[in-house]
Amino acid sequence: MANPSPGNSITLRVSAPSNFTVTSELAAAAAAAGAAVTALDVTESAHERIVVDITANTTDDAHAGRVKDALEALEDVHVLHVSDRTFLMHLGGKLEVVPKVALRNRDDLSRAYTPGVARICLAIAEDPSAARNLTVKRNTIAVVTDGTAVLGLGDIGPAAALPVMEGKAALFKQFANVDAWPVCLDTKDTEEIISIVKAIAPVYGGVNLEDIAAPRCFEIEKRLREELDIPVFHDDQHGTAIVTLAALVNALRVVDKKIGDVKIVVAGVGAAGNAIIQLLIAQGATNIVACGRNGAINRTETYTDSHRVWLAENTNPDNFTGTLHEAVVGADVFIGVSGPNVLGEEQVAAMAANSIVFAMANPTPEVDPVIASKYAAVVATGRSDFPNQINNVLAFPGFFRGLLDAGVSDITQDMLVAAAEAIAARVDETELNASFIIPSVFDPHVAADVAAAVAAAAERTNS
Amino acid sequence: MANPSPGNSITLRVSAPSNFTVTSELAAAAAAAGAAVTALDVTESAHERIVVDITANTTDDAHAGRVKDALEALEDVHVLHVSDRTFLMHLGGKLEVVPKVALRNRDDLSRAYTPGVARICLAIAEDPSAARNLTVKRNTIAVVTDGTAVLGLGDIGPAAALPVMEGKAALFKQFANVDAWPVCLDTKDTEEIISIVKAIAPVYGGVNLEDIAAPRCFEIEKRLREELDIPVFHDDQHGTAIVTLAALVNALRVVDKKIGDVKIVVAGVGAAGNAIIQLLIAQGATNIVACGRNGAINRTETYTDSHRVWLAENTNPDNFTGTLHEAVVGADVFIGVSGPNVLGEEQVAAMAANSIVFAMANPTPEVDPVIASKYAAVVATGRSDFPNQINNVLAFPGFFRGLLDAGVSDITQDMLVAAAEAIAARVDETELNASFIIPSVFDPHVAADVAAAVAAAAERTNS
Repeated sequence: MANPSPGNSITLRVSAPSNFTVTSELAAAAAAAGAAVTALDVTESAHERIVVDITANTTDDAHAGRVKDALEALEDVHVLHVSDRTFLMHLGGKLEVVPKVALRNRDDLSRAYTPGVARICLAIAEDPSAARNLTVKRNTIAVVTDGTAVLGLGDIGPAAALPVMEGKAALFKQFANVDAWPVCLDTKDTEEIISIVKAIAPVYGGVNLEDIAAPRCFEIEKRLREELDIPVFHDDQHGTAIVTLAALVNALRVVDKKIGDVKIVVAGVGAAGNAIIQLLIAQGATNIVACGRNGAINRTETYTDSHRVWLAENTNPDNFTGTLHEAVVGADVFIGVSGPNVLGEEQVAAMAANSIVFAMANPTPEVDPVIASKYAAVVATGRSDFPNQINNVLAFPGFFRGLLDAGVSDITQDMLVAAAEAIAARVDETELNASFIIPSVFDPHVAADVAAAVAAAAERTNS
Repeated sequence: MANPSPGNSITLRVSAPSNFTVTSELAAAAAAAGAAVTALDVTESAHERIVVDITANTTDDAHAGRVKDALEALEDVHVLHVSDRTFLMHLGGKLEVVPKVALRNRDDLSRAYTPGVARICLAIAEDPSAARNLTVKRNTIAVVTDGTAVLGLGDIGPAAALPVMEGKAALFKQFANVDAWPVCLDTKDTEEIISIVKAIAPVYGGVNLEDIAAPRCFEIEKRLREELDIPVFHDDQHGTAIVTLAALVNALRVVDKKIGDVKIVVAGVGAAGNAIIQLLIAQGATNIVACGRNGAINRTETYTDSHRVWLAENTNPDNFTGTLHEAVVGADVFIGVSGPNVLGEEQVAAMAANSIVFAMANPTPEVDPVIASKYAAVVATGRSDFPNQINNVLAFPGFFRGLLDAGVSDITQDMLVAAAEAIAARVDETELNASFIIPSVFDPHVAADVAAAVAAAAERTNS
């Protein structure tokens, strides 16, 4: 499954003898070693020798080393330097904090800072709600993590989580002009995380929880929603649920089935699985089987954690007991938010006719999407190198844009559904097909549509 | 003392009859009401009437109202709208969080976010020191407050403190390209503040404590310095001490006295007073009398707080007991970091010949600087509308630039002195006089000079 990826792009600076065919020979050698050459620039050229920068996607560091070796194996060719474009991009971090106001002279300083700023402070001290207009609070959210469930990497700690939070903040700004700031907490204590987020809240108009391990993430989100007057969103739960529902709405259109009629099997009952199931039920799904590591959650077993208890009571109407492999037999929809390769070809073949498979584990999906597509009518993954990428980037920037625009203090199920429908609606009837059920993350209208839908839902809640 | 200030600048949109002299009549009426007119723009002009925007500095809101009334008193003149330029400048806050990397397409996304970012995360997980190169940590500091001692306004709370912290962050970026983020904490508990700052520290390369009330601020700074591996600076203490020492170095040059020979009286033994005294002693001052509300700190009295105990043991060599008014008799230097009008004309007159008066209380100094200058050879204040403004803006941006550039983990006295000397040295011999002992806050070289001096001091410490 490892294809050369732009995430593993390298630039090799190569010195080679000058001749008419040398650049094509270098490119051919890199390609023969499995690299996907994306650019070739001659940086120096003399009678005897030339220097060429070859930029190429590779699969990983070891592969990058083999590409280098392949070039050095050519006669009289020397690799002067290999730079890793992902590392280069991260030097010094990905965010900066920039003044929105000019501070060119003493008059500017007198307004933005002392003595003029004192009048702004007093206005907020007298009327705390003025903070939303007169400070960054109106447009700023905290991206909060404890670094315990980062991407597929697990508990790598708050410092190592920071590049992801910076990337998330960059996406918030780029796609929805939301100012987002990374808050990477050096503690795993639930109560401490809750009290810290409450203490830092005066600066923020919203909180996006990110990559916090279950079940801690449920308690943190629940308590912060109760105790803060700004909206709190756990992207791994609700962002994933929104885009999954959006994709499912359109996939069901493609196969002409109704959400209330289909049997849906969800593999994975962590943060994402729970949120997806709740949202599907809110949208009218009636027959969901949730599978954890020990098979289907059912009412015959006794569970100790409150989320499994809730799932046992609210899903699995036939009280099916058995394995995931048994559960998918005859199912219309498989939604995977678990781990690599939990399904094989045989299991997809055993699903109902015109089945839908969302295999969202990253980087290795629950089932090879190429194999799944031999049997399923619609296949989607979390990866960008297959059709139908189910990516939270479609949801979270516009969702918070809407929350901030509407001055929302609480997130409702209605807002989540509205966001999902707005994303689904970006694919119009003429475009909709089995390979295009969800818009591109670079669709320039998604964030604004989601924001408008969320703000409209907030309006309905308040009225 | 209330002069019209750009911090109280308003724009009045006025409709008036069209005639040749109307704009000058409007300006004259505003000026007669005490406004300092700074701009006059005709925004609409027709045969019958014109609309004019008059921008003017006023002293306060009540004065702005009187200026409006004065214009409306003119025949057939109507004030359509009054806007407050300080409030306008603050709408939506003063900072934004901006990506430093372009996210134009899927390749960019693959490097800045998933899947490429995972390699950066792993590199930091394997070697935590890599965070300084691969994240915002290298260039980012936290501006931390609990909102308990904001400007001269006191305990106005974390939300009302935010405009000051935003302003400070804007200055950090503008003057020294340091990314600074406001952390306004909704707690006054010393231990909680310490544990929160420790928990959020992974994102930051330094901490600037700001406007936290004494004595809590001392304990917080001391503990964070011990328990964090990034530099911790309390600007109200050390920033003030640096610029005060810088000003004193040059003031002593003007009057041709040596720091080891002069008698210095410091009024105010809070955060600033303590730090100033420590830095003056480090620089060779031998005869300092520190005065609190109850007069000179001395060895005859018994003190319960550790700072007064330290002052009693390390200042006041003659063990003088008495009031501030008695202490300043014959003193060469008065440094005020206390409150308004604690000295009168008589006290300044009673100081030694060629005395130096730094009256830094804001907005109303310890003594009227105009009156003080009748007797003292050098007078400085914290205000921008008198010569010799002693302003922390001269110190903190460059100081942190130097700390970050040198990758410093602990701040030394040597760095504070080096910063003060760098600021003082920006005023060269040909410029130095009683009205110019300290460079302008807009001197474009101050921050870089301070940064270089701090980095050089760090180099000396490490070698």
